[in-house]
Amino acid sequence: MTTLPETPNALVELRSGVLHFTFNRPDARNAMSVGLLNDLCNTFDAIAEDRSIRAVVLRGAGGNFCAGGDIKDMASARQAPRTQHSDPVIDYSRAFGTMLRKVNEAPQATIALIEGAVLGGGFGLCCVSDVAIAVADARFGLPETGLGLPPAQIAPFVVERVGLTEARRLGVCGGRFDGAEAARLGLVHFVESDAASLEARLDEVLDQIRRCAPQANAVTKRIMLGVSRADPDDLLDDAARDFAECLRGDEGTEGTMAFIEKRLPNWAAKD
Amino acid sequence: MTTLPETPNALVELRSGVLHFTFNRPDARNAMSVGLLNDLCNTFDAIAEDRSIRAVVLRGAGGNFCAGGDIKDMASARQAPRTQHSDPVIDYSRAFGTMLRKVNEAPQATIALIEGAVLGGGFGLCCVSDVAIAVADARFGLPETGLGLPPAQIAPFVVERVGLTEARRLGVCGGRFDGAEAARLGLVHFVESDAASLEARLDEVLDQIRRCAPQANAVTKRIMLGVSRADPDDLLDDAARDFAECLRGDEGTEGTMAFIEKRLPNWAAKD
Amino acid sequence: MTTLPETPNALVELRSGVLHFTFNRPDARNAMSVGLLNDLCNTFDAIAEDRSIRAVVLRGAGGNFCAGGDIKDMASARQAPRTQHSDPVIDYSRAFGTMLRKVNEAPQATIALIEGAVLGGGFGLCCVSDVAIAVADARFGLPETGLGLPPAQIAPFVVERVGLTEARRLGVCGGRFDGAEAARLGLVHFVESDAASLEARLDEVLDQIRRCAPQANAVTKRIMLGVSRADPDDLLDDAARDFAECLRGDEGTEGTMAFIEKRLPNWAAKD
Repeated sequence: MTTLPETPNALVELRSGVLHFTFNRPDARNAMSVGLLNDLCNTFDAIAEDRSIRAVVLRGAGGNFCAGGDIKDMASARQAPRTQHSDPVIDYSRAFGTMLRKVNEAPQATIALIEGAVLGGGFGLCCVSDVAIAVADARFGLPETGLGLPPAQIAPFVVERVGLTEARRLGVCGGRFDGAEAARLGLVHFVESDAASLEARLDEVLDQIRRCAPQANAVTKRIMLGVSRADPDDLLDDAARDFAECLRGDEGTEGTMAFIEKRLPNWAAKD
Repeated sequence: MTTLPETPNALVELRSGVLHFTFNRPDARNAMSVGLLNDLCNTFDAIAEDRSIRAVVLRGAGGNFCAGGDIKDMASARQAPRTQHSDPVIDYSRAFGTMLRKVNEAPQATIALIEGAVLGGGFGLCCVSDVAIAVADARFGLPETGLGLPPAQIAPFVVERVGLTEARRLGVCGGRFDGAEAARLGLVHFVESDAASLEARLDEVLDQIRRCAPQANAVTKRIMLGVSRADPDDLLDDAARDFAECLRGDEGTEGTMAFIEKRLPNWAAKD
Repeated sequence: MTTLPETPNALVELRSGVLHFTFNRPDARNAMSVGLLNDLCNTFDAIAEDRSIRAVVLRGAGGNFCAGGDIKDMASARQAPRTQHSDPVIDYSRAFGTMLRKVNEAPQATIALIEGAVLGGGFGLCCVSDVAIAVADARFGLPETGLGLPPAQIAPFVVERVGLTEARRLGVCGGRFDGAEAARLGLVHFVESDAASLEARLDEVLDQIRRCAPQANAVTKRIMLGVSRADPDDLLDDAARDFAECLRGDEGTEGTMAFIEKRLPNWAAKD
């Protein structure tokens, strides 16, 4: 059983194999402070090897998902002294990319439940979730360029999420839009009319995830995330080795047996 | 004139420059056995240099496209002995990727006509066709993770087909959906209400393909498939050489003459 | 203040920080002659360092956007002598790719206003604009393969614009379609019913662009265009350095001050 880290800026709860991670800085509309960013990184690090956790649900307390970077942190980084070998502003910025890659590549399924403000780093988190579900009146935005700043660590994940064609338009126009438009752009998978339907959709998605084998899901996700990088033959060679390992492993044995015996495999039972 | 290979698991017929390749294992819902996979590979190898074959139409006999890998083949591979240098399960899995790349990179236009079950390897074939036409009630699925296995050789082609955003959701949720949803996801190009409209759409697409020059089409497809791999300058350099070769070749001469003389070029005549 | 080059084949006008570049060969439906291609390249070269120019609007005089390459230029290239080291046809073709990359990577926001014929090189220009706005009855096409030629320099940008799935279908079918279908394919961002709504949409887009900081926009665009090429860690490292430079630069200082003082930053004022 995984020991979860302290998370002073988030409420974290494990229920029925699902980790609910709720950003808990409602007065700051859950702005992504360095503290909250560290809570996220520490939690995903802690659960990396735990296949009993099937999914992580990310959401914000108090009606907002996440209102981007914290202006105070940015001011501190700017005032901190640069040395020959380190620049506090570069480090501040780069930490967002590290966090986004960690969530992107998590072996568990990740689900973003989106209401209210979805800005900057919050926008980035939406881009790296496996399933994103938004209410129609959520408010998305990349406000950085209006402040004279590039959405530097977020931009690559926006391109990967919605494609270059829409990303470049949002990039030069400082895009602001609602949940319905986010669904049209392919930024989120589902748009719901209210909080109740958001929860209903979450339950449906979690049911689907529970039917899939945990390690097989982790392997599938790893193969898919590698596509844009690898040589196609290397990719297929690696994938064939992954397949053989799964077929010979516990899940492949149980899954094919369950299929023959016309019963649910052990990972699909609800507790 | 190309000599076509024996295809014990498929019906193959050449009519008016179009090769109709029909999976013929209806009792197994055209599951992609090793035999059927070999028939596909042998046929695409045999026609690779034949520009009189303008298009290949893939479909399944008996109302199903293809129900994925064959459980019997998987069991045989698992029981076969591993040696120091070869693993029958890796080889079994990898053969799907080889077949999918062969169809993906065929110099002819490829068209998938999709009804009934479209699972696993059949899903993969849909992903590598130039034009996919489905009936609305076709049933798509990636059932592997429910068996404890990753859709290892298929996953890369799913990402290339529908993009990472939808692919990762389907991956972790073990996606099952119908033809209308397949069109919304961009997995197929056309969704039709019944078999008759499927045939009508096929005729329309074949007419369009016949108007294009065979070698020019093969070159265009090759350039497009190379985009995700190559350095952009190398890609454009190669493409300029391709253009020069085509402009000076038979097709470029005939095509520009026909344009000036306001007549159809020789490849566009129906026989 | 930038000195703009002579452009015998285009009308060029700078108004309120927006460069209006209008192809002016209406009798040839603005076919992309070598002369017009050079006018485009020279103009984008001249303004590359000028951040007072916020956007470039590309359009065609006389109701057509651009009807592709000029048959006369192609004939000249074909008849010109090849030497050991140079081939006039390769050079002719490659020049289109050079021009398309220059527009693609312009540091300013680029907007294509599309009416009438959008063929070949014109189709390519649509693919490399940040924002494309078409009237519903615009006529798009890739007619090259019907002439026995590949759309060699354009194909890579089509794939980057609409994705491989739709690009390969258009490639083998010699795709012809209207503005409404172009919007469905994701080739253009907006489709409008007539010329008046085209202008209204342009004004709206220009207002959004003016609110973003010029250098921050240029940096954002550069990061986004680099995504498909770079190693993800290199990309994020570079992006963090870009962020630090912007935060410490004039725009970051002015932008964050304006935010605190609840006023528009200096670049957002209309003149």
